[in-house]
Amino acid sequence: MGKLPTIGRKTAQRLAFHMLKTPEEEAEALARAIVELRRKIRLCRDCFNLAEEELCPVCSDPRRDRTLLCVVEEPTNLISIERTSAYRGLYHVLGGALSPLKDVGPERLRLRELMERVQRERFCEVILATNPNVEGEATAVYVSRLLKPLGLQTTRLAQGLPAGGDLEFLDELTLRRALEGRREY
Amino acid sequence: MGKLPTIGRKTAQRLAFHMLKTPEEEAEALARAIVELRRKIRLCRDCFNLAEEELCPVCSDPRRDRTLLCVVEEPTNLISIERTSAYRGLYHVLGGALSPLKDVGPERLRLRELMERVQRERFCEVILATNPNVEGEATAVYVSRLLKPLGLQTTRLAQGLPAGGDLEFLDELTLRRALEGRREY
Repeated sequence: MGKLPTIGRKTAQRLAFHMLKTPEEEAEALARAIVELRRKIRLCRDCFNLAEEELCPVCSDPRRDRTLLCVVEEPTNLISIERTSAYRGLYHVLGGALSPLKDVGPERLRLRELMERVQRERFCEVILATNPNVEGEATAVYVSRLLKPLGLQTTRLAQGLPAGGDLEFLDELTLRRALEGRREY
Repeated sequence: MGKLPTIGRKTAQRLAFHMLKTPEEEAEALARAIVELRRKIRLCRDCFNLAEEELCPVCSDPRRDRTLLCVVEEPTNLISIERTSAYRGLYHVLGGALSPLKDVGPERLRLRELMERVQRERFCEVILATNPNVEGEATAVYVSRLLKPLGLQTTRLAQGLPAGGDLEFLDELTLRRALEGRREY
C-alpha cells in the first residue's frame, strides 16, 4: 500500500496492521470492491469523465444543457465544478494539461476528440476551465486557438479575488488580475 | 509588549530579554524611532492614507492619474494594491468596513469625506476595492448606492480564481463566481 499516493511507509504499516485486526469478511469485501472498481469504472464515450456505463451520469442526464461545453483537465476538476451546482451543461475531460517540463504535448491530450465532438454537436459556448496555473493557462490558450476558426464563443473562468479573506494576504498577480478584470456595478 | 498585536506572553518575554542584551544606544534608538513614528505619521488630508506631510506620497505625486479613484478599507490594502504596480490612480481610505456585529455603521467610515471629494474632483471611475468578504461586499454595495445618483462609473475588483493552484482545492463559492463571471477570450 506504500505505492499508493499520499500513503508513506508509516501509514502503509498502520493500514496493514488495521487489516490484520478487521474480520476476514470485511477484508474480503474491501478486496472485492477494489477489483470491481477497477473492472467497472471506465471512461465516458463522449466526455471521458469516469463512468460505469457507456455514458457518464452527466452525459446521460436528459436535463443537462447540451449547448454548453466545459473543458477541464481531469475528472476531479469536473467534480469540483459539479459541486457548485452552478453549471448545467456538458463537459470534456482533456486528461491533463500541456507541460513541456513533464513532456506532455498536444498529442497526449484528448484534443482530437474535442474537435470532432465540437464539429459534430451544436454547442453555443465552450468554457475553458483549465487550472489557473501556468500549464492550465497554456492549455486554455492552445484550445482557444484550435476553436477559433469554428467561430464558437469561447470563454474562460474569471480570475480575481477568491471569496472571503483580505486583500492584504493575496499575492500580487491575483490582485493585478482582479484590478484588470474589474467590472461595472 | 504583550499588548501589541500577534505578540503573546512568550514572544513579549523573548523580546524583553533581547532588549536587555542589546547595547543601550540601540535600545534608545528604537525608543526614539517609536516616538517619532507616532509624532510624524498622520493621515493624508485628501485620501486618509498614512502620510508624513499634509499629503501622502500618492496624492502628492504629479504622475498619478487623477481621474481614477480606488476606495479601500485600510492603508494596508492600499499598500497591497500599490505593490502590484498595476494601478496609477488615487485612493480613498474608508477606515474600515460596515459591520453590524462589530457595531461599525456608515457614520464610522469616511463616507462624507468620500462624497465631498467625489463632488469636488473630476473622477471618471471609482473602483470599489473593499475586501472580498461579507463586510467588504456590504460596504461596496453601500458605497455604490451612494455614488449612483452622481452618474459616476463604479466598478468592483473581479472575483474568481486566484493565480496558481488547482480547481480541486478551491471553495465552491469562488468557483461559482469564476463560472458566473467568465469572460470571452
